[in-house]
Amino acid sequence: MNNWRDRIAAAAQRIDGHARVTPTATIEIDGRPVQVKFEQMQHTGSFKVRGAFNSLLSLDIPAAGVVAASGGNHGAAVAYAAAQLGIPAHIFVPELAGPSKIDLIRRSGAELHVVPGLYADALEAAQEHEAATGAAQIHAYDAPATVAGQGTLMREWEAQGLSADTVLIGVGGGGLIAGALAWAGTDRRIQAVEPELTCCMHAALEAGAPVDVEVGGVAANSLGARRIGQISFDLARACGTAVTRVPDAAISAAQLWAWQELRQILEPGGAAALAALLSGAYRPAAEESVAVLLCGGNIAPDPFGG
Amino acid sequence: MNNWRDRIAAAAQRIDGHARVTPTATIEIDGRPVQVKFEQMQHTGSFKVRGAFNSLLSLDIPAAGVVAASGGNHGAAVAYAAAQLGIPAHIFVPELAGPSKIDLIRRSGAELHVVPGLYADALEAAQEHEAATGAAQIHAYDAPATVAGQGTLMREWEAQGLSADTVLIGVGGGGLIAGALAWAGTDRRIQAVEPELTCCMHAALEAGAPVDVEVGGVAANSLGARRIGQISFDLARACGTAVTRVPDAAISAAQLWAWQELRQILEPGGAAALAALLSGAYRPAAEESVAVLLCGGNIAPDPFGG
Repeated sequence: MNNWRDRIAAAAQRIDGHARVTPTATIEIDGRPVQVKFEQMQHTGSFKVRGAFNSLLSLDIPAAGVVAASGGNHGAAVAYAAAQLGIPAHIFVPELAGPSKIDLIRRSGAELHVVPGLYADALEAAQEHEAATGAAQIHAYDAPATVAGQGTLMREWEAQGLSADTVLIGVGGGGLIAGALAWAGTDRRIQAVEPELTCCMHAALEAGAPVDVEVGGVAANSLGARRIGQISFDLARACGTAVTRVPDAAISAAQLWAWQELRQILEPGGAAALAALLSGAYRPAAEESVAVLLCGGNIAPDPFGG
Repeated sequence: MNNWRDRIAAAAQRIDGHARVTPTATIEIDGRPVQVKFEQMQHTGSFKVRGAFNSLLSLDIPAAGVVAASGGNHGAAVAYAAAQLGIPAHIFVPELAGPSKIDLIRRSGAELHVVPGLYADALEAAQEHEAATGAAQIHAYDAPATVAGQGTLMREWEAQGLSADTVLIGVGGGGLIAGALAWAGTDRRIQAVEPELTCCMHAALEAGAPVDVEVGGVAANSLGARRIGQISFDLARACGTAVTRVPDAAISAAQLWAWQELRQILEPGGAAALAALLSGAYRPAAEESVAVLLCGGNIAPDPFGG
């Protein structure tokens, strides 16, 4: 893990001033103080900007610039980071990304390509673009620079006073949790949360290797990866990470709770970890202190129609 | 001011565990680091819960309970605090409060009375109820217990590392800014921000005494007081407080910015201080560091239709 911690510390230095230090608070939930980090306040509305800046600032970027495939949030993050750094960017998203995420990318000034199908189809198109142009592929989750960038979040949270025994983190392709595990190792329990209708980490841990799963449900445009990233899988296995699965109804209920109790708008994927706690799918022990990471706020439709 | 600081410290102790410690962050705005406090994450979506709990926990509450008049946020806060403490509450709101604030009060279990007209009309009806029943009147802004409760916000923010030279605060009846001035005195510049279409602090400072003003504009259901509170006026005059006025269009633009840049939903009154900075209505000097208080998130319509 030491090598990872060095990489994450280097990433933190690299992205300083580019990514925001997002706020934290302790919120009482069912009589229990829960540490919460509001990462949906990050630039472009999700944690993805951390990995995007770390990638663009540490990789060799050719004249053709960068290319990324994304369910929406990673694409918006790469587009934003590229625009800030003056790098040409081509972003491939599936139609599933939805109009508000697609608009977010379009507003950044990146070249946008909307592909029929799911995330995996967008990735295939992005790989074709990479082969044809020589652009640098910025992978949404299964690349060391991406994982090290996402790992800055857990490092930052610790500096902000994170003390919980257990941190609940939503999992799609696994880049965010990989970063958290890469930083925290087994010093703290990092609990994976997946939607019941797309749970590729769960399937991989059961099978003993990454396998393809069905992709569906309300969180599909952020957590809808067909197969867990190898880096994430290896870290989860090494750390003994367990997965909590949540039904779509629990995710929707958590979105409503976040609005009514905290005036926070979360997209389904950004509310999955909260849903695990609120629904009782994850039940902490009596003495166990818990933290929840809120990680994305790009709902559809955009409440301002932008 | 010393007496006020003692009262505010006592209020902070009293409301500890009832009001939330809301998060803060440093956000870059136009190349300038700005300290921001996200008080719209407070219970019931505004700072008003601070004054409500302090009032209900420090005043003699008769069997008839409490009564409050409100544009919406104070009523929701008193209703919430009363429900938490098991105190009967009658809340009078003008129709202007709008359906989402009215629903928020109704969900709390308080007795709700919707009155035709503006805030001042609801106040008159609440005073009639007080006279008829003996219920304790919890004034929205012009009462020492309310002001001391709101003052806990500035005290809390200082403990969280507030270091800015100037803090921009939206003003309606003046309870929040009174609390801030009561705590900070002239140690820090507290800059009042009012909508051009309802600016009773500005009018009072011009006239040398509180005077009635026209009430209108997009922020009328939170900042639409006809006359500034006497406590607030006296503190503002003693501290030499200046007022920045913002047009409605700047408030609406600030709401859009808060969503697009921070994924935060602010009601017009909760965005007025931000609008002053974004629009250039308040222009800090080159070396001046600035903080902005976001203080309300109860927009209409409720994005979840609740």
